[in-house]
Amino acid sequence: MIAKSMTPFVRGSSEIRKMFEEGKKMAEIYGAENVYDYSVGNPGLHPPKEVYDAIDHINHDLDPHMVHGYMANAGHVSTRQTVADDLNKRFGTDYTIDNIIMTVGAGSAINALMKTIYDPGDKQIVFAPYFVEYDNWAGNYYAESIVVRSNEANGFEPDPEDLKKALTPDVKAVIINNPNNPTGVIYSEETIIGLTNVLKEAEREFGHPVYIISDEPYRELVYTDQEVPFIPNYYDNTLIAYSWSKSLSLPGERIGYLAISPKSDDPEEFFGAAVVASRVSGATNAPSLQQLIIDECIDAQVDISYYKKNAEDLYKIVTDAGFTALKPQGAFYMWVKSPVADEHEFIDALKQERILGVAGSAFAGPGYIRLSFCISNETIMNSAESFRRAGNKYFK
Amino acid sequence: MIAKSMTPFVRGSSEIRKMFEEGKKMAEIYGAENVYDYSVGNPGLHPPKEVYDAIDHINHDLDPHMVHGYMANAGHVSTRQTVADDLNKRFGTDYTIDNIIMTVGAGSAINALMKTIYDPGDKQIVFAPYFVEYDNWAGNYYAESIVVRSNEANGFEPDPEDLKKALTPDVKAVIINNPNNPTGVIYSEETIIGLTNVLKEAEREFGHPVYIISDEPYRELVYTDQEVPFIPNYYDNTLIAYSWSKSLSLPGERIGYLAISPKSDDPEEFFGAAVVASRVSGATNAPSLQQLIIDECIDAQVDISYYKKNAEDLYKIVTDAGFTALKPQGAFYMWVKSPVADEHEFIDALKQERILGVAGSAFAGPGYIRLSFCISNETIMNSAESFRRAGNKYFK
Repeated sequence: MIAKSMTPFVRGSSEIRKMFEEGKKMAEIYGAENVYDYSVGNPGLHPPKEVYDAIDHINHDLDPHMVHGYMANAGHVSTRQTVADDLNKRFGTDYTIDNIIMTVGAGSAINALMKTIYDPGDKQIVFAPYFVEYDNWAGNYYAESIVVRSNEANGFEPDPEDLKKALTPDVKAVIINNPNNPTGVIYSEETIIGLTNVLKEAEREFGHPVYIISDEPYRELVYTDQEVPFIPNYYDNTLIAYSWSKSLSLPGERIGYLAISPKSDDPEEFFGAAVVASRVSGATNAPSLQQLIIDECIDAQVDISYYKKNAEDLYKIVTDAGFTALKPQGAFYMWVKSPVADEHEFIDALKQERILGVAGSAFAGPGYIRLSFCISNETIMNSAESFRRAGNKYFK
Repeated sequence: MIAKSMTPFVRGSSEIRKMFEEGKKMAEIYGAENVYDYSVGNPGLHPPKEVYDAIDHINHDLDPHMVHGYMANAGHVSTRQTVADDLNKRFGTDYTIDNIIMTVGAGSAINALMKTIYDPGDKQIVFAPYFVEYDNWAGNYYAESIVVRSNEANGFEPDPEDLKKALTPDVKAVIINNPNNPTGVIYSEETIIGLTNVLKEAEREFGHPVYIISDEPYRELVYTDQEVPFIPNYYDNTLIAYSWSKSLSLPGERIGYLAISPKSDDPEEFFGAAVVASRVSGATNAPSLQQLIIDECIDAQVDISYYKKNAEDLYKIVTDAGFTALKPQGAFYMWVKSPVADEHEFIDALKQERILGVAGSAFAGPGYIRLSFCISNETIMNSAESFRRAGNKYFK
């Protein structure tokens, strides 16, 4: 007696799950150290020392009622102030506590946003390849994605002209994920200016806001000297969803925030509605202890250079083996071109060598695969021989 | 540009919020110790010692990757095993890890359940007075509540005959919250048998499951020698939503679970769908550190005798002042009859005496108010004079 509405969710969820189960099975057979699992984005780095110290301090020195009790649904005032101050310091903005809602990770932030703005039948634009959970989250509110494709020719950055063609008056939001999962690309300032110019024109034409939902869990994970444009400084109706899953290696803890630009349309009304949406979507509030960790660790960060070295080493290994890949600029993913049209065949061939990746089709990016390099550098180095053997099948 | 779908949520959310703000303002004016705030269900007791010890142990001795990283979306296997073992030991059941999903509190558990079973237009039955957030959660999936009223004559226990009259084939679930918020009543075994007999007949007649969603955050908070019937032992299609918000005083941490009865219809299919629903509703998984605390503290509990004494002292104070109230049997709420038809007037009169409660209308129970006695015993004792003065207005 599963709801009919659940069917597409259950169906769409099988691919990555299957890979996860496969990885576990292979680890049992060959030993975990002999399986090169590039499938999941589970950070291999431990949280920085500040996190452990903060937990000790919170557990021993703070009032337990404050630590574990209910706070305002939007989150602890002190943490929201800390987040607002941090954004303002880094990006020259004017966020206040009444623009910040602490959330159960970026996923809950995006869900709360979507519940706040979507009616059934509304549309959102996503730029493929993309994290298809965006479709599921919109589906919670019976809204749908319009997919705008980017490709090899434009370096997998979305083209403003394509956005323009796809926009219709029932589009309420556009999702931008920069640095990007699954491609590892950083969208340039030129791209962001192009996209936001198109959206400003659309807002004038449609007479209603077209929000940018800026999904930024990889904001700090940058391996080049590129700047990641801070979108609220380019476009007023910007809503940020952030998570410390990556920057503090806390993905299991579900801690993030939603930031409503103070320059957006009626931010006060939006805040009130989004707090209710966040509460009603089931979470009530972000986990309290984790909020307090953030309050003490806002300046802490995992050692990004570790991922940078991983990116460089894996890129060398993969290209030396004959494959074509985008050199990762940010996030912790490498986007590798399949040497055969159907990338599932390529995934199978890699599996023969005990290498696990995810088919690009799972991100609406067929013909490619995604390798997640947040694993140990040792595993990456040990996989070189396997990649070489896989390459030999295609290029010898 | 708030979605039209959001309007009823925002409107419905104002009452308790208003009281919360009012309490803060009054505390500023009169001093927190001179305001008797019975409005919120924020446990006054600190978590038991086991929780602090567990945090230390987890923070210092366990693998940080396991502690803070992603686990299976359903939650840590060890914690799910601990929960299943605990249920089986206490209630003679046969839960396995494949029946247990760790959730972001009971609210997320109920949301995941509702997403799993509700299509737009479906109906659920709730027994008034009730926690109206059930309507909002169902509203997330465009399902609606049918309200079955209980009253003074039957001691605020639902009447199986009333349930029978309300059942229609589009009813997919019935929510039972026992011990009850807001009345503090424990539904008897006779009531549960009566209700489940009606539902068994309805399932045969309709040819589909009519689930009981058993919302049990107050399961352990019992002040009499009454047994709280464990509903899965009376009815196969029972889904439990549990939270440690009250039993371990962790409401801000959002940790709970959803338990699918192994005797329910195709529990394996249900589990798969509910895991997806739980993930997709935005939470991804329950906060990892909190799951590990539960794993170590399953046998721990706050000192219930503290709330029991509060219940007795408040009951004496309120009835000595001339008011009529239900003597709390469980949860931490007292249901007080308003001496005037519109209980909002009564709420205002209490406010004059710096006593804050919540109007019964906020729980679809007009003519009554809810007093939450999870606060300090000192505050309760200090409020006696205020209650006496309020009583004198009506009974002198």
